[in-house]
Amino acid sequence: MESFFKLERPEKVFDIINGFGPSGEERIPLQESMGRVLSQDLISPENLPRFFRSTVDGYAVRAKNTFGASESLPALLEVTGEVTMGKAPGEAVGDGKAFKISTGGMLPEGADGVVMVEYCHLLDEKTLEVSRTISPLENIIQPGDDLKEGAIVVRKGHRLRPQDIGVMAGLGQIEIPVYRRPTVAIISTGDEIVPIEKQPLPGQVRDINGSSLVAFCRLVGSEPLYVGLCRDDFDPLKEMVEGALNQADTVWISGGSSVGTRDLTLKVFESLRDFELFVYGISISPGKPTIIGRSGFRPVIGLPGHVASALIVAEVFLTRLIARLSGITDLSGPFQTLIEAEMGRNIESASGREDYIRVRLVHRGDTLIAEPVFGKSGLISTLVESDGLVRIGMLTEGLYKGQKVKVMVFDAINRGSW
Amino acid sequence: MESFFKLERPEKVFDIINGFGPSGEERIPLQESMGRVLSQDLISPENLPRFFRSTVDGYAVRAKNTFGASESLPALLEVTGEVTMGKAPGEAVGDGKAFKISTGGMLPEGADGVVMVEYCHLLDEKTLEVSRTISPLENIIQPGDDLKEGAIVVRKGHRLRPQDIGVMAGLGQIEIPVYRRPTVAIISTGDEIVPIEKQPLPGQVRDINGSSLVAFCRLVGSEPLYVGLCRDDFDPLKEMVEGALNQADTVWISGGSSVGTRDLTLKVFESLRDFELFVYGISISPGKPTIIGRSGFRPVIGLPGHVASALIVAEVFLTRLIARLSGITDLSGPFQTLIEAEMGRNIESASGREDYIRVRLVHRGDTLIAEPVFGKSGLISTLVESDGLVRIGMLTEGLYKGQKVKVMVFDAINRGSW
Repeated sequence: MESFFKLERPEKVFDIINGFGPSGEERIPLQESMGRVLSQDLISPENLPRFFRSTVDGYAVRAKNTFGASESLPALLEVTGEVTMGKAPGEAVGDGKAFKISTGGMLPEGADGVVMVEYCHLLDEKTLEVSRTISPLENIIQPGDDLKEGAIVVRKGHRLRPQDIGVMAGLGQIEIPVYRRPTVAIISTGDEIVPIEKQPLPGQVRDINGSSLVAFCRLVGSEPLYVGLCRDDFDPLKEMVEGALNQADTVWISGGSSVGTRDLTLKVFESLRDFELFVYGISISPGKPTIIGRSGFRPVIGLPGHVASALIVAEVFLTRLIARLSGITDLSGPFQTLIEAEMGRNIESASGREDYIRVRLVHRGDTLIAEPVFGKSGLISTLVESDGLVRIGMLTEGLYKGQKVKVMVFDAINRGSW
Repeated sequence: MESFFKLERPEKVFDIINGFGPSGEERIPLQESMGRVLSQDLISPENLPRFFRSTVDGYAVRAKNTFGASESLPALLEVTGEVTMGKAPGEAVGDGKAFKISTGGMLPEGADGVVMVEYCHLLDEKTLEVSRTISPLENIIQPGDDLKEGAIVVRKGHRLRPQDIGVMAGLGQIEIPVYRRPTVAIISTGDEIVPIEKQPLPGQVRDINGSSLVAFCRLVGSEPLYVGLCRDDFDPLKEMVEGALNQADTVWISGGSSVGTRDLTLKVFESLRDFELFVYGISISPGKPTIIGRSGFRPVIGLPGHVASALIVAEVFLTRLIARLSGITDLSGPFQTLIEAEMGRNIESASGREDYIRVRLVHRGDTLIAEPVFGKSGLISTLVESDGLVRIGMLTEGLYKGQKVKVMVFDAINRGSW
């Protein structure tokens, strides 16, 4: 049988795998959505923040009242109130007046900026000396600065990270639409295989493949369904596969490593309803004797019998298959772990501290570029837009455009199940 | 208060975090151990495999009976039996005799090698023509080749990957000792914060930090315990923190971003039983206003109020803290995601296929070296020893020593919870 087939190239296998789609949708509580994949774009129903907020501790004022103020010539203002955290200020700030305000406090009417407490000096309970000029909107976040009403916050097909969940919490999304986790039925074949709790007799071995693949399915965010062991016989194996197809989104067979077992697996697959064979052997090592087909919409996989080969095929190809069945659309290649990149622009850094620069990873030709994401550092949207962090060491003054950097990715290799 | 302390350098912070240890042990079923951390070295109770196994489909023979055999001068042997998979062969292979055998079959007494079926030709039911000389032990795995009895299979402190679980399954370990998942109590403070299901009034914002940190805890393999919101008042916050310390292995406070809130967090921490302050500010940006201390053995953390800063501090430092509390000992640095490496030696590859080379990552000076792991490709121990895979492309004939490669790590950045 082998001679009728040509081995598929890995890129072709990835193309085939990319043809499979998500398994279905459901709604789940936001609090349980770590690592799940959003099935509809999340549109912001409101501005975030919803009001003008101070980003510092200090005094809310009219900026023009500070114009020309300096240490040698401070401006004098009258303190007429204080902003209570979590409350709308009752009164407005008048001309020549100031309200005490904390970081995150709501800016009172009349004020258009906040002077940091470091530049303020109270002469008495009511009299404030301001030793610095501020411009309008200084030290303030405006409504919608983090997210504008109507904007796409998180896209369909994105696997959710802590910052994505945080932003949805900020928008009050307590239940969200996600793709179902794909269920993977795992069958081990081979007359020599016994369950792991059994003491093998001479000639028998425990089912290593089944346990390894169950764990692998968890690793990549799918739900394993260990169907069990099957003898190398057509009828029982066909029955087991058909039963598994009724309960799972994909069926993986592994175990026996002889040519006979592989031929049997193919024969059983060919007997399935609406079956199509895509791959009978891949040009890689190890992992060559891999079978990929479909029964209806469901991928059916025959893995090499050697467990190491089976796991490498799983690592290389089935990570991608699970990503497809999970509805993930932001795949960037067969290796989701790539994290070496080139800086997309110069970036300065104060020495004497380590800077963690938020970056987005973008492809420019063959090069992966780490594009710094700018924005006020307190905004969660900057994290939502980022793929990871680049560290600038304490003794480094910055990074130059084109420099190779290592990106600490937030969502390691687009996989994982929480 | 700010002026009395100096900012800690990140390396020092890592040192402090490294001082914390695992939270406790438990025994769990192997099938639920993906991503868990082994708490005792696993010693192999037996050889794996337990018997001589064929690695090919063919005929079990005495190697000396094939000496000198070639296509032009084949050896003639008599087929006197067949090895049934999963059974010990009943009879021995005599001189000048052969037994049919499949991959994984148990080698019969008397035989010391297997001729691949490609070099065998049956003249009639009993008469076998062998057109190739084999050496003793050719195409055979010996007892203990994968694992020797008494060898350390998986070390204490290692986070379990599919291949680790597979090898334990092969050894019949149906229940294994692991460290408990650390429980993280999460408290959000700030008078302006409301629960995410509430419609915020002017001046109020939803609890973004709590939801983000709950998700982060899941991401890094800990068990989040969302305690809830607390007003910026000493007594209720102290009560909440003390209650949380009774239920969790560590307590993280975040939320309010004003200086007052931070001072309050510190004051509450200082009132705890057996408290020691380690860090009050870190020289990084963002993330400077971070507090790290302990109450008894339990780390207590004050995170910056800005959610982006809090998440970056979590990403950079608390990933490590959770790793320590989880008992993970194979940490390689603050960035567990580093995967660019240099090949440790030349490695050849046949063109026309992609090779996936198993590598172990080792440090040599400042360089991360990807050291190929050799061994029969079917042995699971080669995967147990490996940290990841290096791909050699189809058009590449090999990799040279010193060449930069990208390593596809099996356990992305030593984190994740399954």
